[in-house]
Amino acid sequence: MRINENYWKLQDSYLFSTIAKKVKAFLAEHPDQKIIRLGIGDVTLPLPAAVVSAMHEAVDEMGKKESFHGYGPEQGYSFLKTAIQGYYARLPVKLEEEEIFVSDGAKSDLGNILDLFDRHNTVLVPDPVYPVYVDTNVMAGRNIVYMNANELNGFLPMPDGQVQADIIYLCSPNNPTGAVYHKTQLKAWVDYARRQGAVILFDAAYEAFISDESLPRSIFEIDGARECAVEFCSFSKTAGFTGTRCGYTVVPKELTYGGTKLNSMWLRRQTTKFNGVPYIVQKGASAVFSEEGQRQVKANIDYYKENARIIADALKKQGIWYTGGENSPYLWLKCPEGKSSWEYFDYLLTQAGIVGTPGAGFGKNGEGFFRLTAFGDRENTKEAVQRLASLR
Amino acid sequence: MRINENYWKLQDSYLFSTIAKKVKAFLAEHPDQKIIRLGIGDVTLPLPAAVVSAMHEAVDEMGKKESFHGYGPEQGYSFLKTAIQGYYARLPVKLEEEEIFVSDGAKSDLGNILDLFDRHNTVLVPDPVYPVYVDTNVMAGRNIVYMNANELNGFLPMPDGQVQADIIYLCSPNNPTGAVYHKTQLKAWVDYARRQGAVILFDAAYEAFISDESLPRSIFEIDGARECAVEFCSFSKTAGFTGTRCGYTVVPKELTYGGTKLNSMWLRRQTTKFNGVPYIVQKGASAVFSEEGQRQVKANIDYYKENARIIADALKKQGIWYTGGENSPYLWLKCPEGKSSWEYFDYLLTQAGIVGTPGAGFGKNGEGFFRLTAFGDRENTKEAVQRLASLR
Repeated sequence: MRINENYWKLQDSYLFSTIAKKVKAFLAEHPDQKIIRLGIGDVTLPLPAAVVSAMHEAVDEMGKKESFHGYGPEQGYSFLKTAIQGYYARLPVKLEEEEIFVSDGAKSDLGNILDLFDRHNTVLVPDPVYPVYVDTNVMAGRNIVYMNANELNGFLPMPDGQVQADIIYLCSPNNPTGAVYHKTQLKAWVDYARRQGAVILFDAAYEAFISDESLPRSIFEIDGARECAVEFCSFSKTAGFTGTRCGYTVVPKELTYGGTKLNSMWLRRQTTKFNGVPYIVQKGASAVFSEEGQRQVKANIDYYKENARIIADALKKQGIWYTGGENSPYLWLKCPEGKSSWEYFDYLLTQAGIVGTPGAGFGKNGEGFFRLTAFGDRENTKEAVQRLASLR
Repeated sequence: MRINENYWKLQDSYLFSTIAKKVKAFLAEHPDQKIIRLGIGDVTLPLPAAVVSAMHEAVDEMGKKESFHGYGPEQGYSFLKTAIQGYYARLPVKLEEEEIFVSDGAKSDLGNILDLFDRHNTVLVPDPVYPVYVDTNVMAGRNIVYMNANELNGFLPMPDGQVQADIIYLCSPNNPTGAVYHKTQLKAWVDYARRQGAVILFDAAYEAFISDESLPRSIFEIDGARECAVEFCSFSKTAGFTGTRCGYTVVPKELTYGGTKLNSMWLRRQTTKFNGVPYIVQKGASAVFSEEGQRQVKANIDYYKENARIIADALKKQGIWYTGGENSPYLWLKCPEGKSSWEYFDYLLTQAGIVGTPGAGFGKNGEGFFRLTAFGDRENTKEAVQRLASLR
């Protein structure tokens, strides 16, 4: 049996293990130092009460013969898909129910969608980048072309007509940079993709953090996107589902390549290799869209956004260049005094007991930059900011 | 962008849609006829009380900041993996915790594991077969070789030294035939696989239905299997998790091809393209292994097995040849009087109001055979058997 030798080309990522090792070593030397983690990409607030209550009800249903649910539709229950449809309608974006596929999260779908594409496609990814976009394509042996995201373009790279691409990854609000494309920029991407006959894989996992109403929360707010884009969304950061696992992917019916509808291919892929999201979880997810759920989710996001504002204010006061933090839970700052990402990491850890994420871990253009996140506790965030201020 | 054109080679399956159409047409003509479904492959009993109670607790934990769980380990929580370890220990089969990967179900893993294998491998599948084995390999463009399962070999095909194979699918207890390999048979498969340098993908989703203690419930009861087999298990049929989604896959550390450990590859695949099973679901699954949980699960399985016994007795009385039904929820019978699978389907539907599954839907060797299942309600099963008897 021959293995898939593309796995040999995968690079090991030592980013988070190196961070853990450095923190451990520091704490061994300074056991009384309180560490504040502003590098965390995971939520810390509990599930909204509406979700908890819907899941309790669903658990009870599953415990009684007359209300028990066995296999559900692989692509998700109608009660959740119509709720998602309603959520899009507010933008306004009109979706058909059959264009919405409920899944166990954006990460799974971003990886699995590649099943539909030939190996001999060229993939365009921004640098710095969420490592999953790169690794999933390396595993399939695809050629990857990087586009530079940097200070000059505000970490929002634009299409280059000279570059040929088949599969294009866009993430807005961006992880790790927090930068958000505006509509004219996304329109340029849509036009480019259509000229190239390419598909845009649009990662909208952080859309709920956008409060500026002029910014697009879905690529389907852009004319022509239904002919060239798939959108990936998640309840993870919106409603605290990182450990509860639910997301959804939108595949418009217009999306046709080589005479074949991607929507039909994805349906076939999911019905063959997936068996749907737990009924209990789908019930919880649908409660996110209730009036009560939306109010509670907004309160959680406001809490994280206030954290982001507190960090952003501190960076502004210190004259540190950054993106994100306004319509995103991430702040991406330029390390002061020409420090490298890891130098700044060591500096913050040893001088202030603050742990962030070195930008160099997300690609070559991340060198000299640093990611802070707003997912921490309010008191800790405030204390971190005071510690930062006292460094000057 | 070029799509994966292997999708064009997929055959549409009309099996269950044709069944639905025929039943609908019959009911339109005979609105008062009570239909009994003995074709159903889904469980009907609710989740065991121990599972329900564990999931309520977990939902409460997720609703409080101090006990909230965000991202968990992609390969599953230790509390569940050690419980699974203990479950295997009773066979006795010794597994390391790192050899167990918790997933959202056997169907997902059976499809996704193929990511690890080169396209140019030859796949050996039995006919009749669970269609997922075939479709997932067609999607990847692999060459498929069929082995005949038939009345002569009791629907338990044995290895043929003349046939070259790289990836071998075995399912025991089998879906759709209910046939179960004994240890010497599996040993022959293990020896064959090792000689060929092949990997066995062993689908043990129905292991909990085995009560004959001489029959293997895991391929790892066989010497040498750790060098050539991956095992796929599920809580679906064992504990009623078809709509709750949890399974586990065992990848032994000895499993090495081309100098690469499959265990490391699978870990890399899952950490890249998967984000773990919901905490709530893993808590529910771990309750299956509590003393109370095991008692409740056994009661459910006994219920289904009693249904199987009732059907089997009826078949015996009528002199109908069948496999399964004893250590399996499936009964696979030879259609009487030389009827074809669909002729017998029509006969049972129109003469007795019973709906089963035509064997022809599972491959060419299924023609002339018919699948009945034990997952129905006791009263309905009894009534079905009476109706069958009155046909003579």
